[in-house]
This record gives sequence, structure tokens and C-alpha cells, in this order.
Amino acid sequence: MTLETDLLPLLRALATAPEARGLADDAAVLGDLVVTHDMIVEGVHFLPDDPPEDVAWKLVAVNLSDLAAKGAVPLGVLTGMGLRDDPAWNAAFVEGLGAALTAMGGGALLGGDTVAMPQAAPRTFGLTALGRAAGRVPDRAGGAPGQRLYVVGVIGDAGLGLAIAQGRCAGPDDLVRAYRRPQPHLAAGQLLAPYVSAMMDVSDGLLIDAGRLAEASGCGAALQLEAVPRSPAARQMGEDLPAVLHAVTAGDDYALLFAAAAPLPPLPFACVEIGQLTEKAGLSLFHSGQPVPLPSQLGWLHHG
Amino acid sequence: MTLETDLLPLLRALATAPEARGLADDAAVLGDLVVTHDMIVEGVHFLPDDPPEDVAWKLVAVNLSDLAAKGAVPLGVLTGMGLRDDPAWNAAFVEGLGAALTAMGGGALLGGDTVAMPQAAPRTFGLTALGRAAGRVPDRAGGAPGQRLYVVGVIGDAGLGLAIAQGRCAGPDDLVRAYRRPQPHLAAGQLLAPYVSAMMDVSDGLLIDAGRLAEASGCGAALQLEAVPRSPAARQMGEDLPAVLHAVTAGDDYALLFAAAAPLPPLPFACVEIGQLTEKAGLSLFHSGQPVPLPSQLGWLHHG
Repeated sequence: MTLETDLLPLLRALATAPEARGLADDAAVLGDLVVTHDMIVEGVHFLPDDPPEDVAWKLVAVNLSDLAAKGAVPLGVLTGMGLRDDPAWNAAFVEGLGAALTAMGGGALLGGDTVAMPQAAPRTFGLTALGRAAGRVPDRAGGAPGQRLYVVGVIGDAGLGLAIAQGRCAGPDDLVRAYRRPQPHLAAGQLLAPYVSAMMDVSDGLLIDAGRLAEASGCGAALQLEAVPRSPAARQMGEDLPAVLHAVTAGDDYALLFAAAAPLPPLPFACVEIGQLTEKAGLSLFHSGQPVPLPSQLGWLHHG
Repeated sequence: MTLETDLLPLLRALATAPEARGLADDAAVLGDLVVTHDMIVEGVHFLPDDPPEDVAWKLVAVNLSDLAAKGAVPLGVLTGMGLRDDPAWNAAFVEGLGAALTAMGGGALLGGDTVAMPQAAPRTFGLTALGRAAGRVPDRAGGAPGQRLYVVGVIGDAGLGLAIAQGRCAGPDDLVRAYRRPQPHLAAGQLLAPYVSAMMDVSDGLLIDAGRLAEASGCGAALQLEAVPRSPAARQMGEDLPAVLHAVTAGDDYALLFAAAAPLPPLPFACVEIGQLTEKAGLSLFHSGQPVPLPSQLGWLHHG
């Protein structure tokens, strides 16, 4: 997908306000208000036979994950729902929306729009999440060479879950659930915000997103692939280098990735060190001490 | 379209915060922040051969019109763009977005998302507009029987423009332009906010929207159809009752409709009195003093 690559320079020319952070961050920041908007489209971000409650969950989760990366406390959401004429699906979606907002602490539904899509069109959803910054709002640009890189959450479960849901391989339901019901790390993001130099959520794949954080910070990154946190279920499906490369190039993890200039204080969740920022630009990969060539595709490019 | 009718009770159950205004207003209000989100979909809200710059204009205008109805000053927007693989169209759209934001004073682009739609899918756009309340934020519910109803702007031009653009009748380009490039009444909304008891924008048709304002205010409305402001170009296409009924049941006007408890102060724009709120529930229509039966369709129902 070259769409975002082509349009980003044109869009950035419109994003003249400092609050837009040059469209190079997970969210816009207006004073202590943090605002993000992500879309999900049937056949692109979710499968046509994904249950409507899971689609609603994902719509909420991908946006709250952006708030998590900014350390923000959710205030509420506005939804744009492009639905087909399918009352049972639609009602289940809206109920799932309520359940997801409650389960994740996303706040109330504040408004939005509902549109009947032409009957053959893919269901298309947008969600705007509003949050209040707990304190400072980390961006992606504050990293510096020598700082350590950490991940909160696991990498690669959702990519395997998608492959299982599409029948491309066999595997446990827990991984499908990771694909359909990502968990935004809101509490962790709020607790981490004072200690990180740069933070973002991993939505398009660890490699592509680590490259973005490093580039925004004006440096490169060296990653120790064997250190990347993977779930027991995912490790059971493969622990060799190809399995790890699949994990770090698959999207939809919604883990947190951050850099820190100083050792972290004790925190009530695991922060796994996966490498560090480097003077040298670009990504350098290592596995058990050996350099690993960069894969040709670093992640998914459907996100803008 | 019964979609919004079916889903609204379910959605309202999620809109528990007072800021959501029960989903019965044009926007959510969080302190002095006013937030709205509307979608436009190809084949539903715009025509496939509408120029991309005009589609971008409409996307901005329909959302800023909601801010206008709340008397808010635009701060900026987030966009959700579901585009096809059509680089020239996409680039023209983004340039049109910038031109529209500049022309209407919509503020900067603050963020959002860009998605490549499946190739046969309709282009689908959402926009979240953020505004700062200039003072009090009028809702739709503050009207009372006996208060006069006013319109700022003209009614029916866009409906005729759509018919002309679709080749259903012949008429001047100015009317097509009214359909493709609606003008949100931002300055008027800001000046009116202190004086109105209830205000909204007319997006789905004057009759359906007047009925909504009256119902939210717990009353009915009596409208003098001959008083409804229409442009010279529209009047030239018909001045009889059917022409007026077409005007008041067509959508996409983006005029302002408001009620006021006291005479208005001098204002630098025309506020046309079209009727009053009544004890009797529902709409009552009159033309040159004679009662007129309610048309079976009061407006467009594609908006949620």
C-alpha cells in the first residue's frame, strides 16, 4: 500500500498546528486533551465473518491503544458507523461497543454518525477517542542514542491469530482472540508516561513501528530478536528465527513500545527490554548475538 | 432508511454522560470543548462524479455546520479517509481539504487515519471537528411554546442542485454549487448563541429538523411555508406550493434554525421568521394562511 506514503506529505502540509505533532504521533494533543481517530474496514482490518461484538471491540481497542501510548485517561468516544441493512448484526455491534467501552474503561459514547452503506459495500467504522492527559504526554521524538527500548505486552499473537482465523494454519483459540480482541495497555501507559523519553503503540508490526520511533527521535535502533516478548501459545507454534520474524512483522499487537533514558522504577507489569536506540540510522537486528538481515516487509501499512 | 431509528435506542443506552446530550444534539459538549463527527459516503451523500475538491469541501462543511449550530469557534479537525487506489483523485481531495479548511476557518488538520478501501467499495469519509465554545452552547431542547422560529441561510437550493446534478431537471450552476459546496454559518452561530433558546443546523430537511427541535423542546411547531427563505435562483424554478414543499423536505441546506424567547438585537445578517413553537405537539404547516397537510416524507434520514 503506497497510499499513505503518497498522501502523507500533502496531509502534513495541512497539519500546521503544533497540536497535530506533524501527524507523526499516535494522537493530537490540545492542552491536556488527547484526541485520536482510527478507522477499521471490513476485509482490510477485520474479516467479514468476525463476530460483530469482536469488530466493535477492535474498533474501541485500536483507538484506546493510541491514548494508552500517550498516557491519557479516556473521556469518551464518537463513532462513525457505516453499516449494511442487517439489523441483527448492527444491534450486536452496538451492544459489543457498549461492552467494550465498559470493559476497557473507554468512557461513554458522546456522539457520532450512522450511515447506511450501499448493500455490497464493506462495513466501515471510524472512532474518535478523547482522553485527558494524566501529566506530560510522551511523543515519539524524545528518544536518543543509548536509551533502552522496552515492550509492554506480547508481540506476534495477533498475526498468528489472523493466520488461524483465515485457515492458513492451525492453532489455539487464544491466538484468534488476541487478533479479534486486542487489549490496550491503558493503565501501563498512564504509569509509564512520566518515565519514558518516547512512547507509541505497536499497531503495524514491531519492526516498522520501532523504525518509526527511532526515525522520529533522529536515531536508529538495534533490536535483540530473542528478547522480544512472545506468549507461551505463540512460542509453542515456533521458536526459531522465522517464527520470531513473523511475530515482529505482523500487525495488530497493540503492545506499547517505549524508550527510557534512566532505569525504570518498580512497576506492577513487565517491561521487557528488547534493544536500544543507536547513533546509526535505520534498524539493526540481532538474534542470539548474530546479525539478522532486515526482512523486505517490516509490517503492515494500512494505517495512516 | 430505518437504520438510525432502529439503532438509536441502543446507542442512547451507551450515551450515559451528560456531555453526550442524549445523542439528541448536533455535537457533544465537554466543558468549553464542542466535538462532532459526521460521515459522508460516495453514492449516499455525494455523487461518484462530484469533483474531489467538492467532496472534501462538503466533508468539512457538514461538520463545521454542527459547530456553527453550537456557536463554537473551530479549533481543528481529524479525518478518516477511506480512499481507492486513484492517486490523482486522492491528491485533489487532500488539496481540497486544505482549501476548505482555510476558506471556512476550520483550523488545522490535527490527525486521523487513511485507509485503502477495497477497489469496488464506495469512498467513505469521516471528520471529527473540534471547537471552542464562545460562551454558552445552545442545545435543541431549550425552546418553549410561543417562541418564534427563525432561519439563517436559504432552504432548498441544495435539493434543487442535487436534482440538476443528477440530470432530473435543468437549472443554474449556482444551485449545483449549493449542493456541492454548502456554507456553514459559523459567524452567525457565534453571534446568535447568546440570544437563542434552541438552535440546530438544517441538514436533513427543514421539516424533519424543525420537528426534531420542537420535540426536543417538548412542544410542536407551526410553520408559515411562504415565509421560508429561498434564493432567487430557486424561486425562479418554482414559487408554488409544490416547489416550496420540495424545498422544505430536501436535505443538505446547512442553514441554521433557532428559536428565541425575546426579539433579536440588530445582527449583521438576515434572520427570517418562519413560524413559532406551539403547545400542540407535532408540525403544523400553513401557506398563505391556509393549513397544508404534512408531506409523507419530511426529509432525509441518512444522518445519525
